[in-house]
Amino acid sequence: MQAVIFENGAARLTERPRPEPGPDEALIRVRLAGVCNTDLELLRGYMGFAGVPGHEFVGEVAAAPGRPELVGRRVVADINLGCGVCPRCRRGDPRHCPDRTTLGIAGKDGAFAEYLTVPTRAIHVVPDTVGDLEAVFAEPLAAALEPGQQLHLTARTKALVLGDGKLGILTACALRHLVPGLVLGGKHAAKLAIAATQGVTTRQGGTAEALVQDLLQEYGRFDVVIEATGRPQGLETALDLTRPEGTVVLKTTTFAPTSLNMARVVVDEISLVGSRCGDTALALAYLRDGLVDVTPLAEATYPLAAFQAALDHASRPGAMKVIVDMDMEKSASGGQRG
Amino acid sequence: MQAVIFENGAARLTERPRPEPGPDEALIRVRLAGVCNTDLELLRGYMGFAGVPGHEFVGEVAAAPGRPELVGRRVVADINLGCGVCPRCRRGDPRHCPDRTTLGIAGKDGAFAEYLTVPTRAIHVVPDTVGDLEAVFAEPLAAALEPGQQLHLTARTKALVLGDGKLGILTACALRHLVPGLVLGGKHAAKLAIAATQGVTTRQGGTAEALVQDLLQEYGRFDVVIEATGRPQGLETALDLTRPEGTVVLKTTTFAPTSLNMARVVVDEISLVGSRCGDTALALAYLRDGLVDVTPLAEATYPLAAFQAALDHASRPGAMKVIVDMDMEKSASGGQRG
Repeated sequence: MQAVIFENGAARLTERPRPEPGPDEALIRVRLAGVCNTDLELLRGYMGFAGVPGHEFVGEVAAAPGRPELVGRRVVADINLGCGVCPRCRRGDPRHCPDRTTLGIAGKDGAFAEYLTVPTRAIHVVPDTVGDLEAVFAEPLAAALEPGQQLHLTARTKALVLGDGKLGILTACALRHLVPGLVLGGKHAAKLAIAATQGVTTRQGGTAEALVQDLLQEYGRFDVVIEATGRPQGLETALDLTRPEGTVVLKTTTFAPTSLNMARVVVDEISLVGSRCGDTALALAYLRDGLVDVTPLAEATYPLAAFQAALDHASRPGAMKVIVDMDMEKSASGGQRG
Repeated sequence: MQAVIFENGAARLTERPRPEPGPDEALIRVRLAGVCNTDLELLRGYMGFAGVPGHEFVGEVAAAPGRPELVGRRVVADINLGCGVCPRCRRGDPRHCPDRTTLGIAGKDGAFAEYLTVPTRAIHVVPDTVGDLEAVFAEPLAAALEPGQQLHLTARTKALVLGDGKLGILTACALRHLVPGLVLGGKHAAKLAIAATQGVTTRQGGTAEALVQDLLQEYGRFDVVIEATGRPQGLETALDLTRPEGTVVLKTTTFAPTSLNMARVVVDEISLVGSRCGDTALALAYLRDGLVDVTPLAEATYPLAAFQAALDHASRPGAMKVIVDMDMEKSASGGQRG
């Protein structure tokens, strides 16, 4: 089969043997896979990853020795693959299993390939009414929903999502069902419009400073600020906008050390809460119920043969979601969606 | 009256007019005042403070125009002096009033003087059974108790206090009543013994690395780590010892920017919770009920005339609490306690 390999800081398309599913695994033929910023970080050396990247995907089960009823079903998967036996896994939370592998990120080949294998316990069948281009967003949508699983967000919470990138928009669109008055702050009118169309209140500022001034003027400080700017400086901006005893949710995964004004966190007794992957089943339920329209986030689709072009596209500043379509004609050189 | 002034990075003893209490204030004759690390930071320029420092004290009311029944009573005070009219103050929490002054720290002269004035609403009468040398610890004990007001700490919480300085010891001795199994980790046998004598489980390591290894071996990772090392590197050590989805309470007020491995906080979904001043009435109740013995923390007492020597002593690495006694003979040059 064709597969992308990350090795020594470079991506290459290669021919590999199709993986064999173990007794508790399914072999999945990938239909679509999404490029995530984490993939770009892996390419730069994060986690020392070498193998097939890709953790956002939808595919169909080609074989499942232990659960033959799954064959032919359209599925997505949890990306944190726990050991299944530790206390964490036994209480149903493999996300923090100390011995976990992570699909396409650590210790397990991912979805930028024609096929991958996944333990069947990590698989979720996609409802028929949810299209492939929606289902491929299950993983990032789960991550966007995660702050609502960590904090008690309600209609009374004064909440701000900071950053109008993919994750910021997805987070605002997802969490507005818990916090109808939630505000999304960003820099780009066209991006903010994607969220505004779905009912999110948005505020635009040309610079971080202008945005802060505007938001403070109109709202004062927020109970909860979800930092999704993707930039290390975003934390200080978030602190500017958080009330004493409020909470900053850290969605940005910055791999370089970040400078933190700790005195400020201590004096204002702020909580900083790291937030990562979420609940895949919850994300599928949101998609099934039409609570979030993820499709406007898909900016371009490329065939697997043009993976390098897909990576280049995803690396552009401000790029939205880039999709790799395993069924796209191999001769196609990729192109804008629509 | 005699008063210490911090100005342009230097401390000097000077003669000043005795302050006049406003209609809602009390004039307090200071008996004892404690030197805090924050005082040393103020001297280095933190907060741009110029005036009389000192926020840990016990004294007796000399005049209180609006509440004459207070005259002669022995008192301590909340150090965060709210405006009294904002929503924060109206719900009884002046600690985060946006217009607050802070006794001896910001906008209000403090206790390293023969007299100071404090709004009567900030005053707490000291129970007769609580001695001066105990009462002068009311403010730092309140801060030590604060994590228990912010987090739900119970007998089931696997909790660690990191750091065997004054605040670490005080925090461990105070919070062990909520978390009997709490562990205090530090480097100095003699200091750890102060807490061990009061029933705290302690672990000693010659270096941070050795301590981490020893604690992980014996306990695994903790639900809650209270970082009270007073050093910016303490945060990374605390993260080494915190379980996924656990909490690090930040007690160290570092004024220089601290380097934070944000990816680690995000991936493990850690909460970092800033923690500052606490509830003075609660601290007095702990002292009244004999729940914490603060007196072994007092290392030396100096007269006001020897304030510079007191500062020098407090600046020594590893110094415990240094007390300034306004009634000590002016000729005394200070000395060890006991």
